[in-house]
Amino acid sequence: MSQEPEFSPIAELAPLLRAGSLSPVTLCERILDRIHRHDGLLESYIHVSESALDQARRAEAEIRSGAWRGPLHGVPIAIKDNSFTADMPTTAGTSAPGIEFPLVDSAVAERLRAAGAVLIGKTRTHEFAWGTITPPTRNPWRQDRIPGGSSGGSGAALAAGLCLAATGSDTGGSVRIPASFCGVVGLKPTFGRISRRGIVPHSWSLDHPGPLTRSVADAAILLGVMAGYDPADPGSRDIPVPDYAEAVGGGVSGLRVAVIRNHFFERNQPAVDQAVEAAIGWFADEGARVHEARIPSLEYGLGAIFAIELSSSTAYHDASLRAGRSAGFAPDVRRLVQFGRFVTGADYLKAEQFRHVLMNDYARLFETADVVLGPTEPITAPPIGADIVALGPHRESALAATWRLTYPYNLTGLPAITLPCGFDDEGLPIGLQIAGRPFDEPTVLRAAAAYEKAHAWHEQRPRI
Amino acid sequence: MSQEPEFSPIAELAPLLRAGSLSPVTLCERILDRIHRHDGLLESYIHVSESALDQARRAEAEIRSGAWRGPLHGVPIAIKDNSFTADMPTTAGTSAPGIEFPLVDSAVAERLRAAGAVLIGKTRTHEFAWGTITPPTRNPWRQDRIPGGSSGGSGAALAAGLCLAATGSDTGGSVRIPASFCGVVGLKPTFGRISRRGIVPHSWSLDHPGPLTRSVADAAILLGVMAGYDPADPGSRDIPVPDYAEAVGGGVSGLRVAVIRNHFFERNQPAVDQAVEAAIGWFADEGARVHEARIPSLEYGLGAIFAIELSSSTAYHDASLRAGRSAGFAPDVRRLVQFGRFVTGADYLKAEQFRHVLMNDYARLFETADVVLGPTEPITAPPIGADIVALGPHRESALAATWRLTYPYNLTGLPAITLPCGFDDEGLPIGLQIAGRPFDEPTVLRAAAAYEKAHAWHEQRPRI
Repeated sequence: MSQEPEFSPIAELAPLLRAGSLSPVTLCERILDRIHRHDGLLESYIHVSESALDQARRAEAEIRSGAWRGPLHGVPIAIKDNSFTADMPTTAGTSAPGIEFPLVDSAVAERLRAAGAVLIGKTRTHEFAWGTITPPTRNPWRQDRIPGGSSGGSGAALAAGLCLAATGSDTGGSVRIPASFCGVVGLKPTFGRISRRGIVPHSWSLDHPGPLTRSVADAAILLGVMAGYDPADPGSRDIPVPDYAEAVGGGVSGLRVAVIRNHFFERNQPAVDQAVEAAIGWFADEGARVHEARIPSLEYGLGAIFAIELSSSTAYHDASLRAGRSAGFAPDVRRLVQFGRFVTGADYLKAEQFRHVLMNDYARLFETADVVLGPTEPITAPPIGADIVALGPHRESALAATWRLTYPYNLTGLPAITLPCGFDDEGLPIGLQIAGRPFDEPTVLRAAAAYEKAHAWHEQRPRI
Repeated sequence: MSQEPEFSPIAELAPLLRAGSLSPVTLCERILDRIHRHDGLLESYIHVSESALDQARRAEAEIRSGAWRGPLHGVPIAIKDNSFTADMPTTAGTSAPGIEFPLVDSAVAERLRAAGAVLIGKTRTHEFAWGTITPPTRNPWRQDRIPGGSSGGSGAALAAGLCLAATGSDTGGSVRIPASFCGVVGLKPTFGRISRRGIVPHSWSLDHPGPLTRSVADAAILLGVMAGYDPADPGSRDIPVPDYAEAVGGGVSGLRVAVIRNHFFERNQPAVDQAVEAAIGWFADEGARVHEARIPSLEYGLGAIFAIELSSSTAYHDASLRAGRSAGFAPDVRRLVQFGRFVTGADYLKAEQFRHVLMNDYARLFETADVVLGPTEPITAPPIGADIVALGPHRESALAATWRLTYPYNLTGLPAITLPCGFDDEGLPIGLQIAGRPFDEPTVLRAAAAYEKAHAWHEQRPRI
């Protein structure tokens, strides 16, 4: 164990838990103690499970009896508060009167529970996953900074050692944004890879569940448990789930790496460019075949995802709008849900047509590339309350900047991972984004794990 | 040959053409002569091919040389004027300045041409296929009546013996409406069965090409030629094309027939109800297992198809709207294209969600049924200029009435055929609609052919 258990990757803890040299109850107590000490400041959890220790005791008894369920058995994992849980309330980040969610397990909670995980609590989300700030949660690396969002509670809790992994959902970047800002790994798998049953919808055709973890190997473990066909999710695909853990370990020699020079490198903070260029250089040094590419159509992406996301969100919230319940939404979210009414059906269809153009452009790119490398975020975590962020000489809306480099993989549904690749002068983490072909999470994980192993940025931890 | 060749089914003419006892040139001359004599009044064609006789001579030479291409070889077939043809101009029914279409063959024209058909002319369509009247075309059965639309030229030309078959396209009923009003057979196959390459789009997710023919056997012949995968149409499905001609000939004993009693029998003209009930009785008498069913969700269908059709049409015409070219559209079509801007993206998505509900309701119905029987139209062909039609004691917008019973099979994409099942007191034809499972055109054709053989309504012809 390289660090205290609450800061160790699950892949390192699992053998200890299985062998009985680490007790799930001890691990759970340590995590609960950290939550008790730090979450008053960080506010990453909206609910901590009252049955966590009971779950840990049950896991311990099962492991002792020889019924080991796998690497998540006895591991405290947090669930984003937009995913239903049978034993904890779900709010989706809203306090609007009249909105309630059922006490049943989402597919994600059900699968993690069946794998023996201790579902330790519900992590905060930007209301209805419609934003990238996650108030009131703070970034563990600097508490005057946002954690990102919408899965901001998951990113903050994980970075602060308040869980061993967490779930998120990603409609325009909501797994990868907080993972990047909080210096952890975040994986948005291919559209249809993980069931969305029991997750409050944001935009049906863009929503992707995914794990936030301390290492790439842990992302492989969680994906293996979370992935699989579910006829209850109309977007779910019946494609076999490979052994992701096996994919982690290979090298990158011969790997064909594309770097999309437009869009992804146009307005980034200098520290971000520097860290990402160094990472690209490492891949080249290791024998990867790096080449530069352009996808000019990306210029139209923001309009397209806004049209789709606004339309879908407004359709979902239509009953609340009609009943006046949206009066209880936070002003930023209420505004977006109301704005959605100004998108026409014709706009929506043109956005969907653009999406096909972009998917075809990426498909052509992947004829000569195995993965695409670039930054996850053009910035590091901005100050709490900043509506505008600085990117070198440029200024940009914080919302537009934070999802600018992540949303292309929601429009296309392609798998994309973020992992730490450095820190800026203020000690804030920078994320490297690696995307791949549809359902080729193994190659994405392999490339990410090779980089991670050589750099070990993930062993850094915030001082809280 | 039961009648003059221009009123005979292709299935009867083909052996004569093949054997040389009927000359394609003679046949073409007779058709051209009829067009010359009658189309001044009917206005079913917007363009008659100048090369028709050349095409017929080439067919005759090929057949004589033993290179018979199949049952359409040397047969004059008309193409709806929204489908591109390399040798004839396409207008899609518009005279708006600034709108032009290329001189290339649509997939439908290409396939019919390759099968040896003589492409005799372009039949009129309601402008951009957005309507069910097809001005200025007249119904051959009574010239003060509309032919239906939008494939009204195809219906009128075929009924009047001005072609042997014609193509159409069907977004809310545009093949079946004119076929029903003109007393011919019209087949809208499953979504994805016939390529739409080179057909001016109306609503991508609702558009279906299909044939209008004199008999069910002829519909099987044309479908066999027109069907097949085409990667150039994103909606095209790569599913083998069965031998449809083989399907025509079986009986209906044991066939499970559902009759949806709501929606399809609520506001029909008495003559329509009477003719359709008689047809249902015939199926029961022949040993089909007829049962009654209800699909309550159909109540919401009109709102759904309007939201989808308006959004899609307005997205297609967006450039014309912005450039002011829509000022040249006919007032009814311009109004619909402009109205499309008031449909929100959220409305569009809710309509698509409804569509899935309806598809699932039909899928459940087809667990215990092989086909669904009902009327094609609640009315017979209304008078030219009538905006409101009478249905017994009810009054309804002509547009709403004409597509009320056809659009469910556009929303669901299910195959549906119309064939004559009687005449009202004014001598106007009534259509029987038979729908089936996705890609189960063989069963639909078998049921239709059995009914047709026992009744021979299709041997009636208008007095012009």
